[in-house]
Amino acid sequence: MVISMNLWLHFSSGYISLAPSLNFLPVALFELQMAPLRYISLVYSRPKAAYELQWHRGPVYLTEISLDVDADRDGQVERNNPNKGSWMWGPNGHGAILLVNCDSEHTCRKSLDSEHAEVTRVSDLKDMSPMVLRTSGPAKLPEGYKLTMHISQGDAECVRVFSVENPLVGGEDLSKEVPCLWGNAEMNFYVEGLRFPDKDFEGLISINLSMLEPSSQGFPETPIFTDRVVFRVAPWIMTPNTLDPVEVFVCSTTDNDPFLKRMRRLVKNSGCKLKICPEDMNRGDRWMQDEIEFGYIDSPHQRFPVVLDSPRDGDLQDFPYDVLLGQDFGYVTRTAYGKEVSSLDSFGNLEVSPPVTVNGKNYPLGRIIIGVAFPTATKGRNMTKVVQDFLWAQKVQEPIALFSDWLLVGHVDEFMTFVPAPDKKGFRLLLASPDASYKLFRGLQNGGHGQAKMFDGLGAEEITVDEILSDEKLKAENNYVQSCIDWNRDVLKRELGLDDDDIIDLPILFHVMENRAVAYYPDMVNMIVLGKNLGIPKPFGPKVDGRCALEAEMTSLMEGLGLSCTYIDDFASYHKLLGEVHCGSNVRREPFSFKWWNLEM
Amino acid sequence: MVISMNLWLHFSSGYISLAPSLNFLPVALFELQMAPLRYISLVYSRPKAAYELQWHRGPVYLTEISLDVDADRDGQVERNNPNKGSWMWGPNGHGAILLVNCDSEHTCRKSLDSEHAEVTRVSDLKDMSPMVLRTSGPAKLPEGYKLTMHISQGDAECVRVFSVENPLVGGEDLSKEVPCLWGNAEMNFYVEGLRFPDKDFEGLISINLSMLEPSSQGFPETPIFTDRVVFRVAPWIMTPNTLDPVEVFVCSTTDNDPFLKRMRRLVKNSGCKLKICPEDMNRGDRWMQDEIEFGYIDSPHQRFPVVLDSPRDGDLQDFPYDVLLGQDFGYVTRTAYGKEVSSLDSFGNLEVSPPVTVNGKNYPLGRIIIGVAFPTATKGRNMTKVVQDFLWAQKVQEPIALFSDWLLVGHVDEFMTFVPAPDKKGFRLLLASPDASYKLFRGLQNGGHGQAKMFDGLGAEEITVDEILSDEKLKAENNYVQSCIDWNRDVLKRELGLDDDDIIDLPILFHVMENRAVAYYPDMVNMIVLGKNLGIPKPFGPKVDGRCALEAEMTSLMEGLGLSCTYIDDFASYHKLLGEVHCGSNVRREPFSFKWWNLEM
Repeated sequence: MVISMNLWLHFSSGYISLAPSLNFLPVALFELQMAPLRYISLVYSRPKAAYELQWHRGPVYLTEISLDVDADRDGQVERNNPNKGSWMWGPNGHGAILLVNCDSEHTCRKSLDSEHAEVTRVSDLKDMSPMVLRTSGPAKLPEGYKLTMHISQGDAECVRVFSVENPLVGGEDLSKEVPCLWGNAEMNFYVEGLRFPDKDFEGLISINLSMLEPSSQGFPETPIFTDRVVFRVAPWIMTPNTLDPVEVFVCSTTDNDPFLKRMRRLVKNSGCKLKICPEDMNRGDRWMQDEIEFGYIDSPHQRFPVVLDSPRDGDLQDFPYDVLLGQDFGYVTRTAYGKEVSSLDSFGNLEVSPPVTVNGKNYPLGRIIIGVAFPTATKGRNMTKVVQDFLWAQKVQEPIALFSDWLLVGHVDEFMTFVPAPDKKGFRLLLASPDASYKLFRGLQNGGHGQAKMFDGLGAEEITVDEILSDEKLKAENNYVQSCIDWNRDVLKRELGLDDDDIIDLPILFHVMENRAVAYYPDMVNMIVLGKNLGIPKPFGPKVDGRCALEAEMTSLMEGLGLSCTYIDDFASYHKLLGEVHCGSNVRREPFSFKWWNLEM
Repeated sequence: MVISMNLWLHFSSGYISLAPSLNFLPVALFELQMAPLRYISLVYSRPKAAYELQWHRGPVYLTEISLDVDADRDGQVERNNPNKGSWMWGPNGHGAILLVNCDSEHTCRKSLDSEHAEVTRVSDLKDMSPMVLRTSGPAKLPEGYKLTMHISQGDAECVRVFSVENPLVGGEDLSKEVPCLWGNAEMNFYVEGLRFPDKDFEGLISINLSMLEPSSQGFPETPIFTDRVVFRVAPWIMTPNTLDPVEVFVCSTTDNDPFLKRMRRLVKNSGCKLKICPEDMNRGDRWMQDEIEFGYIDSPHQRFPVVLDSPRDGDLQDFPYDVLLGQDFGYVTRTAYGKEVSSLDSFGNLEVSPPVTVNGKNYPLGRIIIGVAFPTATKGRNMTKVVQDFLWAQKVQEPIALFSDWLLVGHVDEFMTFVPAPDKKGFRLLLASPDASYKLFRGLQNGGHGQAKMFDGLGAEEITVDEILSDEKLKAENNYVQSCIDWNRDVLKRELGLDDDDIIDLPILFHVMENRAVAYYPDMVNMIVLGKNLGIPKPFGPKVDGRCALEAEMTSLMEGLGLSCTYIDDFASYHKLLGEVHCGSNVRREPFSFKWWNLEM
């Protein structure tokens, strides 16, 4: 008699007695009632484990097969998690996590090709997500039966599965037989991500394991059982100024020794390392901020920094790949279509806010900030689409687009930054403010310091407070600049949930060149933030009683937050070249303690 | 004195006294303290309303500008909802909703082109989402200032905004000046969606309104203020068998009069309408199930049915566009790349489950079910990618892929359906089961009815129970079929959270032609479900005491659920052509009462 069977037995049901340790059932138990069996799916529970026992026909074998992953995100591959086949965000969520294996053991530039199909070092295995095939049952499957691991066409370009040192599925191979280790066995697999989430890839990947019955009498192979696990590829995460600095990167050039000297002292005082990119590597390109953005990827089993290489590709372009990429230091880039790269593609135009809450919605990893053209502009410059798409697709730091095209260089770091604060939201937004600058200058004039000179000691540059205040063209230009910053201020308040108390206006003037704005004196908001130490472009403001009035104002504004200001002379080597301290440096920071998979989306 | 101002006044703060009805502030109030003002953003609250009052320079005007939508989803456009600029799922969520204007007033086939840029009928306006620009302030803006509505390049192909009868932005036009109606005015806009969510379009659209200051002294126009609203395009939603039927569609052919007669009676008894597609329209293509799938789109302001036209494109291909598409009856289709359409692209291979809860996750609109090749197959047939992408992108009925390629025709409706039930989960999954059929036939044989004939009265087809049971080849074929169905059963249990009690096995045999399976006798699971009435292919099973044993078994299984079985002879006109009642019919159903935007994602 043939009976179709799909029998679920539970210990609690008392239907049949099974010892919890039993994972191979004697045939006789069943044969009395039903034979030959076609299919038995048997689940029993014990604390933190559920087992699915599978099948067979003929003389009855019961075989347990489970493809297991770390679906509960505790760093361990548990047995047959009932949620392993789906993915859910949040602290009560579930689903395994995959890293893009983009560090030096496994990276090739700008594309992933098959030559990298071998895992040559054991160190690389720890970047991969462990996956375990657990079997128990008879020592051997009946003739012709086989286990096959398979993935979809779409997923194949996003994932690769290794069996110890051999590639199994991924790339060209969608399906492969798994050599069976029967009896009670565990077989280890290692899974690596090949692609970050992007516009056309949400980040979810399924890996399937099927037992196939041999074909007979002209029928195709029949699937008897399929187990499935789901991974999400970890997003690339940026680090805001409020996170502790680890390493500071600057370039050495023929003309920046004094700058390096001040930076060295500041970095040392801040307790982190200074890494200097030598001239033979930077080839005179000093804009360390613009070529790269530091971030990281994180999973329950591994975490490492990943540098995003800008499509800007100045003379610093080889630095991230040749120097930064290393063991446990990943690399990712995006190549712009055609020649559509502009100054807005430099990563001085890519920042990230500290954690915020906006109308009840939490952003515990902050929000990415980019600068674009004003949307009504017909000929504006923008950050290139492929990079914007990449940033949006990471999802966990939902981007905000500001208007930065009003600036000649066009970077958001020219008018804004964030500093840590002991109170309120834990940070302040600093904004460049021509109005604050005019107010300060008028105060000086009213206080009898109209003849105090800016740019004192810089020779031909010198100009008095009275002269600045009487320059109607400069005033009109700064009215325009203030309007542009005010518009961004409004967006930032709305999108970050800020009050006016969360914002500090810094006295900074701009002037207009080629219809777009540049800083009139060193742009103090373009600072480097290292914990409580700020490295600020020395503004060379008018001196009152021997002290620079701009520095005094700046220091007074920051002191209240417990921050210490170091003014760094970048006038000749950066400011005159249309950048400042922030443009000329970069900081790798500690990752967030908050785990991205605990986000509630 | 110039002061940068961003002043927030609250009634509760007592800082300044404003009457709640006041929306134009006298200049003098402010001039004492600060003038000229550049920017004032003023918020005051009263029950259920928040107003943002804006700006001006020179002599002070305060102007309220708000672009408003139905962000609280109550069918009314409220004033300046603080959440109008973002979109959140769920009963506590927010964000306005847009319909794809795909009914006859506004549809063109397979692409949307500019010739449809005029709104010619008022009836069309109600398919669009209302949007209101509310202004109050001085009767006229100062010279040169203008309001501009603008959208992003990416959104332009997905949305169009009309100002009464004139297109404003969308398509080629990313930005347009809005004619200002000042004083206290309301200007109505109508927004239509142009694209359903898809692989490359999540469904979210932003519309911006900016006030621009005229350019002067060579500076570009300056944005003074931008207001933004966000819409989500409503997804296309399928309707499961558990929803009440409204209209039944069948084809009239030269050979199906008896079938039509039985259908007419069944449909009448079920209280819905029968629509017959005449032969000059169907050109002999009787597979009404396969050419189309009925669904609907829903918003707080409007709802209408939308037919998804299959890329199958048999001789019925003109029917959905020429007949179904109408006023308040939408149309959408997807065109396959190249020639990659197979039998799996017919919509007998596209079904939807009733609402389910799986491991605590709710699917109150059910889950879409499609059939594909078994994933390890190298030469399998699949539903074409563009249709799969479309279905996945709708998000609210997350699809499940079953294995249907083992069938010659390859449709999921050949081995499964859902019927309503008064108990448990509110439905049962019915599965074709060769094992159940063999069990029934063996029971007949054991009961002395081995000589009872199948296909009685159908002439050459007749065959006895004994002959069927002794056919070893048929048995082997059905073992294979049962394995394929069992595999799908396992997927359905896991993905729909079903127990064995939720599934009923129907006695159905298959046989194998060209290595793939077809029903051996009329496939009872391929039924039409009209409330409590089931229209079931008459199986022509062996007769015991004058009654068909298969019908008796089927009726007995359904009776317990309060369902009434009508057996319809489709043998010559459908079964012999490899389809049955379900393949030859289609049902438009009532929409869900559950609103898709209340889903928690």
